[in-house]
Amino acid sequence: MKKLLLVYGLLVATFLAYIWYFVLREERPNGWNEGATGLTGGIEEKYVMVTFQSSLDYWRSSMKGFEDAAQQLNVSVEFRGATQYDPNEEITVLEKVIARKPAGIAVTAINTEALNPAIDKAVAAGIPVVLFDSGAPKSKAYAFLGTDNYDAGAQAAREMGRRLGGQGKVAVVTQPNQLNHQDRTRGFEETLRKEFPGMSIAAVADGKGDILVSAQATEKILDEHPDVDGFFATQANGGAGIAQALQDRGLEGRKTVIGFDTDKGTLDLVRSGEIDATLAQGTWNMGYWSLLSLFHLSHGIVTEGKQEGSHPIPPYMDTGITIVTRDNVDDYYAK
Amino acid sequence: MKKLLLVYGLLVATFLAYIWYFVLREERPNGWNEGATGLTGGIEEKYVMVTFQSSLDYWRSSMKGFEDAAQQLNVSVEFRGATQYDPNEEITVLEKVIARKPAGIAVTAINTEALNPAIDKAVAAGIPVVLFDSGAPKSKAYAFLGTDNYDAGAQAAREMGRRLGGQGKVAVVTQPNQLNHQDRTRGFEETLRKEFPGMSIAAVADGKGDILVSAQATEKILDEHPDVDGFFATQANGGAGIAQALQDRGLEGRKTVIGFDTDKGTLDLVRSGEIDATLAQGTWNMGYWSLLSLFHLSHGIVTEGKQEGSHPIPPYMDTGITIVTRDNVDDYYAK
Repeated sequence: MKKLLLVYGLLVATFLAYIWYFVLREERPNGWNEGATGLTGGIEEKYVMVTFQSSLDYWRSSMKGFEDAAQQLNVSVEFRGATQYDPNEEITVLEKVIARKPAGIAVTAINTEALNPAIDKAVAAGIPVVLFDSGAPKSKAYAFLGTDNYDAGAQAAREMGRRLGGQGKVAVVTQPNQLNHQDRTRGFEETLRKEFPGMSIAAVADGKGDILVSAQATEKILDEHPDVDGFFATQANGGAGIAQALQDRGLEGRKTVIGFDTDKGTLDLVRSGEIDATLAQGTWNMGYWSLLSLFHLSHGIVTEGKQEGSHPIPPYMDTGITIVTRDNVDDYYAK
Repeated sequence: MKKLLLVYGLLVATFLAYIWYFVLREERPNGWNEGATGLTGGIEEKYVMVTFQSSLDYWRSSMKGFEDAAQQLNVSVEFRGATQYDPNEEITVLEKVIARKPAGIAVTAINTEALNPAIDKAVAAGIPVVLFDSGAPKSKAYAFLGTDNYDAGAQAAREMGRRLGGQGKVAVVTQPNQLNHQDRTRGFEETLRKEFPGMSIAAVADGKGDILVSAQATEKILDEHPDVDGFFATQANGGAGIAQALQDRGLEGRKTVIGFDTDKGTLDLVRSGEIDATLAQGTWNMGYWSLLSLFHLSHGIVTEGKQEGSHPIPPYMDTGITIVTRDNVDDYYAK
């Protein structure tokens, strides 16, 4: 009988310990002042990433960052995308995502205007939205996370200036109608002018984001300025086109070429030495810090909101640029 | 009886196993892939914020953000500062903090150069460092979190343009030798020129960050340009000086005045209507996201580091600007 009492006593004590330990600790609601439980959500809390041309390799690293953050924070993620380069398709995808009222949405805008009504509708409905990689400045999204394109151009100019010893003529192959490419070109031109007075820009050509058109533009530049020493492409296909034109003319390795992004084609050309350096964007950062931003908005861990136009979280995060050369190119191939 | 005891024993054992499982799960070490425990550190993990003129009210909100993040992440924080506006004193304070090997340091740089050797030493020793509020671009700190001063000037221009209906002459009272003030002035001038062709800038004066000097500069502008319609001060004392000069001339409320920051003096002038609007910096964001950045560096939850010059975390976070007017000024007084 005494033994039985002891067992009962143990049972009760265990049960009390259980209640004391877990009811107090685990069931505390998430959010502001949750105390010692850390930043953590629930598996039923779903965040969605929305892209366009969703099968592009380019998105993979951002998706990985988004997933990695979800694992850290113990929340769920989902990926939805328009398969084509089609604003209407992306609007439809985004509308469907909004209808399911997720905990937050990270979206990359196919252009600066098309998604704004959908984004603003989501924010008005209390769904946090941030933009990554390409922004929509006039939308009501809380933040934009992406490359500082002006700075990317400036870094390309410094790499070019360093490689050419501060002397010579260079040319740019770009897409003059797109804002991000305009910023890259401007950063390149202004930095070269300011920091490398011994250098000049011979030509700025439109490669239309196409390998063949970029190759033709490069040949034209070589015809008009045979003494050009280097090329900067503000976009991956531009770099491939420059490399092709130089090869066709037997000039590979004899001009300095700086490319953009880290798709397999560009990395192969860096490895072979036909492209001297390329600029890697901070795509993992875009995904990781997008989810972290959305989590803070969803849990209300923010600057006390004081009025329309105030910023509960940092409204812009520059996700960084890294220069990739033959020395470190192997690290950038998809694992 | 024996069977009953066995059953009870089993029950107790199951319960203990259950609890043991959760205790283990909760106490799993922090870091990458920690699974379902969320972002959480240890109370022995200490992060330090280093300031100059440490008694300034201005730092309070950044300190609150730093503390709030520490509570979320279950880590400790400490505040150290140079009491004076003295680079050598801040270097000494920073060196002492580094010697104690904290988990991370957030520092606001008294100028763009003085702290660089100390910051670089800390980073070389494996101590994560980020800069907030005022940066040191050539240091090896991992990130800068602060106001986009050019954008702050642009927002001031839009507020001025809106209030004056896009017509009239305005003047700027600034500190032309400091980089952040140059950026604010440039953002103001360029935005006004681009977006408000009906407006012009009559004068840009040096207020030397002093109320009396700013008042004198304002009187001089009023003498030379009696038809000036508005003033923009890029600094708190400039706004107070403008307000004083207008009062001395009996012109209070008859010119549009846009100030900067949210110290009590400026807020009082907004409340009384002598300053029409002032710009609030995202100081809480600076502190909160500095600690979050340091935590990620300290725990290695970062972009895979590929080479010197790569960015394990976003290298720049714009912490935002909010326009404060009579309508929402009460929210900005220290609670």
